[in-house]
Amino acid sequence: MALTSTSETHPRRVSELGEFGLIERFASLLGTAPEGEVWAGDDAAVVGIDGGTLFTTDVLVEGVDFELAWASGVDVGWKAIAENVSDIAAMGGRPTHAVVSLALPASTPVSVTDAIGEGLVEAKERWDIAVVGGDVSRASEISVTVAMLGRCGPQLVLRSGAKVGDVLCVTGSLGGAAAGLQLLRRGLAGPGPTEGRHVSPELAETCVRLAGRQLRPQPRTEEGEALAEVGVHAMIDISDGLLADAGHLVDSGGLAWSLTGEVPVDPDAIAVASLIAADPAELARTGGEDFELLFACEPATVDAAREALRRLGTAVTVVGEVRERREDDDTVEDVQGWDHLRDR
Amino acid sequence: MALTSTSETHPRRVSELGEFGLIERFASLLGTAPEGEVWAGDDAAVVGIDGGTLFTTDVLVEGVDFELAWASGVDVGWKAIAENVSDIAAMGGRPTHAVVSLALPASTPVSVTDAIGEGLVEAKERWDIAVVGGDVSRASEISVTVAMLGRCGPQLVLRSGAKVGDVLCVTGSLGGAAAGLQLLRRGLAGPGPTEGRHVSPELAETCVRLAGRQLRPQPRTEEGEALAEVGVHAMIDISDGLLADAGHLVDSGGLAWSLTGEVPVDPDAIAVASLIAADPAELARTGGEDFELLFACEPATVDAAREALRRLGTAVTVVGEVRERREDDDTVEDVQGWDHLRDR
Repeated sequence: MALTSTSETHPRRVSELGEFGLIERFASLLGTAPEGEVWAGDDAAVVGIDGGTLFTTDVLVEGVDFELAWASGVDVGWKAIAENVSDIAAMGGRPTHAVVSLALPASTPVSVTDAIGEGLVEAKERWDIAVVGGDVSRASEISVTVAMLGRCGPQLVLRSGAKVGDVLCVTGSLGGAAAGLQLLRRGLAGPGPTEGRHVSPELAETCVRLAGRQLRPQPRTEEGEALAEVGVHAMIDISDGLLADAGHLVDSGGLAWSLTGEVPVDPDAIAVASLIAADPAELARTGGEDFELLFACEPATVDAAREALRRLGTAVTVVGEVRERREDDDTVEDVQGWDHLRDR
Repeated sequence: MALTSTSETHPRRVSELGEFGLIERFASLLGTAPEGEVWAGDDAAVVGIDGGTLFTTDVLVEGVDFELAWASGVDVGWKAIAENVSDIAAMGGRPTHAVVSLALPASTPVSVTDAIGEGLVEAKERWDIAVVGGDVSRASEISVTVAMLGRCGPQLVLRSGAKVGDVLCVTGSLGGAAAGLQLLRRGLAGPGPTEGRHVSPELAETCVRLAGRQLRPQPRTEEGEALAEVGVHAMIDISDGLLADAGHLVDSGGLAWSLTGEVPVDPDAIAVASLIAADPAELARTGGEDFELLFACEPATVDAAREALRRLGTAVTVVGEVRERREDDDTVEDVQGWDHLRDR
């Protein structure tokens, strides 16, 4: 695995390992999952409780994953739940229970924690999740860690199931969440005065929609279940960016992939390209947090997948194909994607 | 509930609410657990998966719960697992699976994360827990959040089961972890040069044992199961201090308690009293993190509890009795205990 070469250079700081190097280093300590369980390395773990329970965790940290300058507490609470829901959706499962750990400065305004609570409630009600407990501690910045359980669907879909000759498909469109983040950081969406924003009412509405893609992600739960039912081979949610997550998907099966189709770019991201001075196609390839689903299936399954998702109003686009790995393929680490720890 | 009076004063900062006020404020948002489930307010939640699954989470934050000046990464990893194990033990259950979220500065030495991993592995092997996944993010300080699942034992023991006339009993002895913390903070135990420590070899050994009480807690898992089997009515682990946790226990049943017996003080804490200039009896009443079990049972059950725990080499001491609440009783908030957020 890629970790070997990294660890042979004896990294001194975790910034040299990067997020995924560190995760691999931990994962190697965990031992081997028994038959019927799946441990680290997928969107969620599968544990053998009740014939198959999904278990996952994700953390949001102030200053890294959000800023209160452009995200409300409600947004933070919502997203802390939603990013875990997306992990469960990418397994073809349905979320059921969650616990929430909140670390925060003692000086945090109660209005902020009340808003986080409101966001947690909105999200738990959206997906009918029981939030059953949690913990609170003091810290220098706010962080919200959610751990979530889910029920496996009739068909469990792992990252590792892709086969050579499969096509890679993506739901919806990409780049919107990254464009929304750029807008929010530039003060062109979200809270704050709008007078200084010299944009048309239509463009202002587009900005609001894009901010929503960043702040209130809508994981593809129904789509995940439907895709599992039509028999897709492998699935992952796009949280780190298309190129990075496609790499994670094929890498877990020891394979590679080639981009063969056009990546569906969020039309709203195209509309704001000049405002944020960014290439929307690049945002669609490398921007994270769209929480769309990327899946591998037989070419013959694409029509069934399209049909199943049409009912949900969600498009399916073929973007690539799965193939054997070649000598000259980039490693997963070479692909630019969101990494919480690496120096870039 | 006590929260009402607090919230009526419109607190502006979470330091005014305190840890428990904030937890109650969140808990009030969660809705009502269905028949057979127990949500926030106990050591762990009970969810209706597989006829009864325990679900809990706890976070350790650098600078609040530990300092790397006196705790090794191995200690931190161990304790992150152990504090969750203790919550499961206090329900009469047995831990099964965990996920671990690690937030940390990118500059963290890999030697520290390797050590945290080693501690997680030591602890998971001690209690035969499958660590099945996790997440990594960047933050200003290190924090380790563990979420843990457990199997309910044949007898589930809630906090709320105490009855008027029950006695309150504690396992083992108290004050050791708090004394250990004092020693570690004063540089009288743990890493660092020992030459400056003008203590006898015997006292030095005592200091090491006390540091171990703080750094490597040994939750009472077998004791928890045995006490559930003999039919104790209510149970909680002592993480915030005897007085505070006894308050939590009886408060959840709308009752009160009186201290009637002598609190068993860790003999090691007595031995170092002059070194740390602390009253060991006070440490035993208010010091946290001993991770002993406090339980309520009928007076007639005490002998059976003693007998069951004698086989495990663990003492049982009657410290109080459960009674109706009186007008002049202190609220839980009045009892001095560890609170992560309150200004003191």
